[in-house]
Amino acid sequence: MGSNSFGTIFRITTWGESHGKALGVVIDGCPAGIELHDDDVNAALALRSPGRNPYISPRKEPDHGEILSGTFRGKTTGAPICIIIPNHDFDTSKYDPISHLLRPGHANYTYLEKYGVFDYRGGGRSSARETASRVAAGAVAAQFLKTVGIQVGAYIKQVANIHAIIDCMDVAELRALVYQSPVYCPDPQAAEGIMALLEEAKAQGDSYGAIIEFITSPLPVGLGDPIYEKLNANLAKAMMTIPAAKGIELGSGFKACEMKGSEHNDLFVMDDNQIKTKTNYAGGTLGGISDGMPILGRVAFKPTSSISKPQKTLTVSGEEADFLLPAGSRHDPCTALRAVPVIEAMTALVLVDAILLNRCVKL
Amino acid sequence: MGSNSFGTIFRITTWGESHGKALGVVIDGCPAGIELHDDDVNAALALRSPGRNPYISPRKEPDHGEILSGTFRGKTTGAPICIIIPNHDFDTSKYDPISHLLRPGHANYTYLEKYGVFDYRGGGRSSARETASRVAAGAVAAQFLKTVGIQVGAYIKQVANIHAIIDCMDVAELRALVYQSPVYCPDPQAAEGIMALLEEAKAQGDSYGAIIEFITSPLPVGLGDPIYEKLNANLAKAMMTIPAAKGIELGSGFKACEMKGSEHNDLFVMDDNQIKTKTNYAGGTLGGISDGMPILGRVAFKPTSSISKPQKTLTVSGEEADFLLPAGSRHDPCTALRAVPVIEAMTALVLVDAILLNRCVKL
Amino acid sequence: MGSNSFGTIFRITTWGESHGKALGVVIDGCPAGIELHDDDVNAALALRSPGRNPYISPRKEPDHGEILSGTFRGKTTGAPICIIIPNHDFDTSKYDPISHLLRPGHANYTYLEKYGVFDYRGGGRSSARETASRVAAGAVAAQFLKTVGIQVGAYIKQVANIHAIIDCMDVAELRALVYQSPVYCPDPQAAEGIMALLEEAKAQGDSYGAIIEFITSPLPVGLGDPIYEKLNANLAKAMMTIPAAKGIELGSGFKACEMKGSEHNDLFVMDDNQIKTKTNYAGGTLGGISDGMPILGRVAFKPTSSISKPQKTLTVSGEEADFLLPAGSRHDPCTALRAVPVIEAMTALVLVDAILLNRCVKL
Amino acid sequence: MGSNSFGTIFRITTWGESHGKALGVVIDGCPAGIELHDDDVNAALALRSPGRNPYISPRKEPDHGEILSGTFRGKTTGAPICIIIPNHDFDTSKYDPISHLLRPGHANYTYLEKYGVFDYRGGGRSSARETASRVAAGAVAAQFLKTVGIQVGAYIKQVANIHAIIDCMDVAELRALVYQSPVYCPDPQAAEGIMALLEEAKAQGDSYGAIIEFITSPLPVGLGDPIYEKLNANLAKAMMTIPAAKGIELGSGFKACEMKGSEHNDLFVMDDNQIKTKTNYAGGTLGGISDGMPILGRVAFKPTSSISKPQKTLTVSGEEADFLLPAGSRHDPCTALRAVPVIEAMTALVLVDAILLNRCVKL
Repeated sequence: MGSNSFGTIFRITTWGESHGKALGVVIDGCPAGIELHDDDVNAALALRSPGRNPYISPRKEPDHGEILSGTFRGKTTGAPICIIIPNHDFDTSKYDPISHLLRPGHANYTYLEKYGVFDYRGGGRSSARETASRVAAGAVAAQFLKTVGIQVGAYIKQVANIHAIIDCMDVAELRALVYQSPVYCPDPQAAEGIMALLEEAKAQGDSYGAIIEFITSPLPVGLGDPIYEKLNANLAKAMMTIPAAKGIELGSGFKACEMKGSEHNDLFVMDDNQIKTKTNYAGGTLGGISDGMPILGRVAFKPTSSISKPQKTLTVSGEEADFLLPAGSRHDPCTALRAVPVIEAMTALVLVDAILLNRCVKL
Repeated sequence: MGSNSFGTIFRITTWGESHGKALGVVIDGCPAGIELHDDDVNAALALRSPGRNPYISPRKEPDHGEILSGTFRGKTTGAPICIIIPNHDFDTSKYDPISHLLRPGHANYTYLEKYGVFDYRGGGRSSARETASRVAAGAVAAQFLKTVGIQVGAYIKQVANIHAIIDCMDVAELRALVYQSPVYCPDPQAAEGIMALLEEAKAQGDSYGAIIEFITSPLPVGLGDPIYEKLNANLAKAMMTIPAAKGIELGSGFKACEMKGSEHNDLFVMDDNQIKTKTNYAGGTLGGISDGMPILGRVAFKPTSSISKPQKTLTVSGEEADFLLPAGSRHDPCTALRAVPVIEAMTALVLVDAILLNRCVKL
Repeated sequence: MGSNSFGTIFRITTWGESHGKALGVVIDGCPAGIELHDDDVNAALALRSPGRNPYISPRKEPDHGEILSGTFRGKTTGAPICIIIPNHDFDTSKYDPISHLLRPGHANYTYLEKYGVFDYRGGGRSSARETASRVAAGAVAAQFLKTVGIQVGAYIKQVANIHAIIDCMDVAELRALVYQSPVYCPDPQAAEGIMALLEEAKAQGDSYGAIIEFITSPLPVGLGDPIYEKLNANLAKAMMTIPAAKGIELGSGFKACEMKGSEHNDLFVMDDNQIKTKTNYAGGTLGGISDGMPILGRVAFKPTSSISKPQKTLTVSGEEADFLLPAGSRHDPCTALRAVPVIEAMTALVLVDAILLNRCVKL
Repeated sequence: MGSNSFGTIFRITTWGESHGKALGVVIDGCPAGIELHDDDVNAALALRSPGRNPYISPRKEPDHGEILSGTFRGKTTGAPICIIIPNHDFDTSKYDPISHLLRPGHANYTYLEKYGVFDYRGGGRSSARETASRVAAGAVAAQFLKTVGIQVGAYIKQVANIHAIIDCMDVAELRALVYQSPVYCPDPQAAEGIMALLEEAKAQGDSYGAIIEFITSPLPVGLGDPIYEKLNANLAKAMMTIPAAKGIELGSGFKACEMKGSEHNDLFVMDDNQIKTKTNYAGGTLGGISDGMPILGRVAFKPTSSISKPQKTLTVSGEEADFLLPAGSRHDPCTALRAVPVIEAMTALVLVDAILLNRCVKL
């Protein structure tokens, strides 16, 4: 168990608070012989680090990770890999005036009830800053996936009523476009619209949610396990552990309820001498097991709960109170943006685990 | 591990094939002292059993479960509870002519690739018949939940473009309405429309998908664990393990991307001397931990993959072939209907586990 | 979790009480394609079944197991295998007069305190009858091990001051000798002595403990995982879960404390073109990982707690009382005897799991 | 899973190599509200740190641990606790000349076979230095146990033919005596003999094994779970994960085979208004569940494998070679000595986990 761990064979355990000394991750079960350097981790961390443009949080964190164990001469050894990311830019004093208030949309109420204590400084353990540890782990997973030719991409599909439309879905091309965009959106026109929306939201002290689409290279057939360890179920869990996620769908998703079986069934066809399906309404799995098509899905995120507008709330002891974030609080007008690399990381973690597990089941 | 197990403290392991001798479940970790009789299990099984009306599969299975262990004088003892459900109505010979064909929308291709063998008779282990075991386990979970005053309900919310609209959401009342309806829909007008649609689909040899909404009584605050064992994440996984599920959302769900933070934040208010939230866009959790509101969510199901229309497909060795289900094959025009009690069962399983785990963390 | 489950990839869950309707096991994670019939299970069950000779319990149980799921045309499919073993010979009424007494050396006191209820009939879940389920699962594990050429043997090494001395340690030969002996002892002279001892103990209404030695074929190098999943640690746990086990040692065991490093270090040598060690004080593992030598160890068992002599005890409410087993109670003068096939089963389960896990770690 | 993790609810994950930058541990599942400071950890680390007297390794490591997460204002918060222990005194170059040799009694052969790579510097991950992480985690466990009044002690019981004899077994008193002794032995006369033996062994470049006895305060009744999560089985596993452990026994242990049931059965008696047993041959558990008596057991350790005497061995490619440790290599003449605090730590970890799990099972 352990609620701070994820994965079965390739298992990560993250630790650290938003305003603590450091955060990090231990990765257990990574096969030996994978190339891995600090640079691989730091390149990934850079994709979600704050402070880089006006559409994301201004907190200044270099997010430099250091590998403390588990590698020897630039390769993994099979031993657990500990990566540490020191925290730098935090001033905990500004949270003191609101430490007795329930923050709307935040977890301080539920943590307080559960644990009797809450490290309120920047959200403590419940802060989305924890996702830096996921991205560091995802970088290790991606190094493994590279050895088997699998890539994962994600992008902002929708904010408010602005929809991104993309033609190509080659994962490498897609990622190149995504990470050029300040708002993680490969459709330049949609990106323009989203930037305008977010500037307006910032001016109003408000925030937006978003939908992120993710896609993988075509997977080998056979990943995932029947019944309760279905690949799609583990992906769904992975996505819903990301702060602010409200929904996850694969393939046809919620639209499936409007389709007939004769439309929805993906017909088997030969493609380049391989069994494939003509369409991908399934989203890449049948019976919970990868079917040779790309995994394709979408995750919905709520708008950032931290807003600068005044809100009504209660004190921890239940009295009515006004809630106003301290001046200078740093937050994202749309936290979902920086969830793009987090979704890539979670997908990579699920896939590596499924690959390693799959080697066990088939004789 | 074990891909046929679900849950951590209250842990079920299901077994059995669609056309095998029997199916069943072992429940480990059920607290001692819970009232439990065969009748409790069989009342639950009756809600999903086939053969009762024209809108569900005509397979004739009494679905009678027998408790083989774990109770003493009508109460649980803390020992594992094994429940067995014998199979009766199966004629495996009619599947022989299609045993060499890939069934569109089905798992025989992926199972074959993964295991090198497929028990094709009625879908073998991948059949939705496995969900009978879940419902049996859910009945035990519900007996536990009764002792802490929690109920779970679910209903058909949408089929094609027909939406059910309900006023009341008291769980007991809701369930009463749902289980009176042949199509598990508490809105009589919508139910009429759905029945008409399904009759038409049957006539055409086609099928439909659906959306199911589920809701619980208001939960105690503090269930679920931070980061990777969030209550919502475990619910998402639970739902996506159900055959044919394509998506899951909680609270505002996919609509969240169209909302602003100032609209979406559920404000804390006092209600009958308890801290509650004014709205429930969160769907019952904050930071992955129950916040005192009902859990509210929706699951999307694809249309039944078994249809009577002829389809193009491939043989297991990749040659083009025509696929036609044998005459007399039994299937549901909308399998999602019978997923209603399955969703209740999965929700109950997740809640019991969270309750038992929660007692560990707080000193 | 689940305290009735054992193993990680190849994971068993046992269920059933001594005097319930049936007992059994679900095996999850068995690879597909392994030959498996009821006969394989029943041949193994016969080795520990009661009622066959004067040195073991006279309870008359045919111990006939039936495979209910997970096989197709005589081979495993990768789906969970449920095996059921119905109970026949039990008369629960004779336990009624002692149901309010704490049985010396038995678990009814601790179960009562833990669960508030105890199924006292024949020891309920805490009865060594549960080990029938282990032996059934072990038979499946052995079918798998056969495919990789590994065998497991065990025998009675010591009862009181009688020591068995054996020359050969070829596992197949050893087993042949062991299972010819009514007291599971391949040394005929020692066996004679043990039989005499046990007859005397029976006459006195008393019982004996024993030490069992177990040995495997030379294993492939690399099984087991570093630090907390060492092969030897998992074997130690496996053995200590067997009712009445009091100790476990591997290789040199407790004698190691009397040796010097220069004596104890097993030197590496080439043997038939393979790296082996000259001696096997290590008992088959180095750093928790199999080193190419046989696993060799010993398990100590306490004397059967059920004796016919009168004993002093307390009632469940703490009053002094006399304890006398009901006339006609069936028990073994040395339960350790029938632990021989149980130790083989547990060893096989640990090995299969290690083999399946090992395939995951090496790239 | 994860072979570098131990425990279920209170779960530790250790990381780090002997000659890497640092080592450490993440503790997940520690209840909130436990007092915890760096000093608590460092006091425990001091009990096993090297360099303090002539009977243990001369490596100079301050073993200073720093808590990086999981506490707020000197108390645990329920969030994962990461403790880091930087390495200081290591010179990896001296291991270069022997990097191609199989070290007798060491894990480099098995690691090499398993992973294809071995961080040979000081034994890498397989070094007993990893146990520093366990002791750090044990210190956190001990802080928890303090809140429920439970203590754990251990001491050197036997080296070669020297046996320690102790009268009192009050755990606090025992520990005071143990940690005053340079050889962790509370019997001054035996301690003298052991010191003489170890000086002689050092002079000869040789080493010794030992037996350690451990004991706890009387436990509450009901800890541990039936069948496969027995408290004694989890203790056995815990002990056998310690480097160099060759055997574990509880209560009567291996002597049980020489006893009769009428001698071995611990009779229930009232003691100060509580149900206790007259003797403790059981070693503190019945049916795997704590029975209200102290846990009492012994662990056997092999002699240190690192000796200064020349030995025959093979190269990694199988050629015969002479093995001689580089001059200045640091090792313990009897590593078992420093296993005393490690055994205390492992026992504490098992007990905390059992306590937290127990709160789940009883309604």
